[in-house]
Amino acid sequence: MTRDDNNVNINARLRQSYHHGDLRTALIDAGLSLLASGPADALSLRGMARAAGVSATAVYRHFPDKAALLAALAAEGLVRLGEAQRQAAVAAGGGLAGFIATGRAYVRFALSNPALFRLAVATPGDAAAPDTEPGALLRANAAAHLGLPPDHPEVTVLALRVWSRAHGLAMLMLDGQIPASDAIIDQVIG
Amino acid sequence: MTRDDNNVNINARLRQSYHHGDLRTALIDAGLSLLASGPADALSLRGMARAAGVSATAVYRHFPDKAALLAALAAEGLVRLGEAQRQAAVAAGGGLAGFIATGRAYVRFALSNPALFRLAVATPGDAAAPDTEPGALLRANAAAHLGLPPDHPEVTVLALRVWSRAHGLAMLMLDGQIPASDAIIDQVIG
Repeated sequence: MTRDDNNVNINARLRQSYHHGDLRTALIDAGLSLLASGPADALSLRGMARAAGVSATAVYRHFPDKAALLAALAAEGLVRLGEAQRQAAVAAGGGLAGFIATGRAYVRFALSNPALFRLAVATPGDAAAPDTEPGALLRANAAAHLGLPPDHPEVTVLALRVWSRAHGLAMLMLDGQIPASDAIIDQVIG
Repeated sequence: MTRDDNNVNINARLRQSYHHGDLRTALIDAGLSLLASGPADALSLRGMARAAGVSATAVYRHFPDKAALLAALAAEGLVRLGEAQRQAAVAAGGGLAGFIATGRAYVRFALSNPALFRLAVATPGDAAAPDTEPGALLRANAAAHLGLPPDHPEVTVLALRVWSRAHGLAMLMLDGQIPASDAIIDQVIG
């Protein structure tokens, strides 16, 4: 069998294994798995292809370069961060307790997913999906907490203060400046 | 002239140009200049030797490896950050205004010295020089503000909250998540 025959067979198998869109999801899942064990700098399209069990050519069809892959992973990271915050707010029963739980969930998500978190918050936000942006989520919570419209200046300042505090605590804990303890998270975000 | 003669001449010139300790200072200054124009990742002992106008051998006498150099630069960064905070507190007249000024100065130092700041806060603190650590400085300020001893639990929580908020705002501004504006710094740290 020639190398060309081999490629045709591999591509045929890929077409069988993945419907349109599924491969992209599989590649993002592979990227997330790699981020769970190492930093974003160490990611490569080739490594992701290997992890997903597909050819590098298949990867390039969805992500022309590493930047495109990292942007997709960062967007997925923001979605998951937002989801963790929303779930925490609901579990706390909403209101002020939910607002506080949102900030604590932000820090806990960072500690549980360090590489994904660092990537997500260092990639400028996606204007097309503003509701996944942590700042926008905190703004909505701050508006509800203060009983003011989301674009009120007081809401802006409260949201930025809450976001800054949660983000700072997360980064200081990730960088070993403050011990990563649950008790400290509860005390500082409270 | 042989290569050995050359080395002897270079070493003789180095001995003339730098007294003991001066070369180390010159090398750190060279490293700080390089950090002003690029990230710590891009630093090399060779590049620092070039910037200081000395041989790589001379550098190795003071810094056995890149990690040793980065640790020295990080320590210098913390000293300068602490100095900027102390000056801001004095300029604001101390008290609550000085406490707030300390937090604002932290963010402004980060924006003015992004690579040095990132390096300093990502390098675990130097236990031998705890008074240069931003956390310890903020703890002293928080103790003065609350009128309680520095090891009081309330002081700890206030210091961690102020540090987290300033650190988070600095990082979010450095990473382009929040516009780096003086007005926002004053509103969020106030």
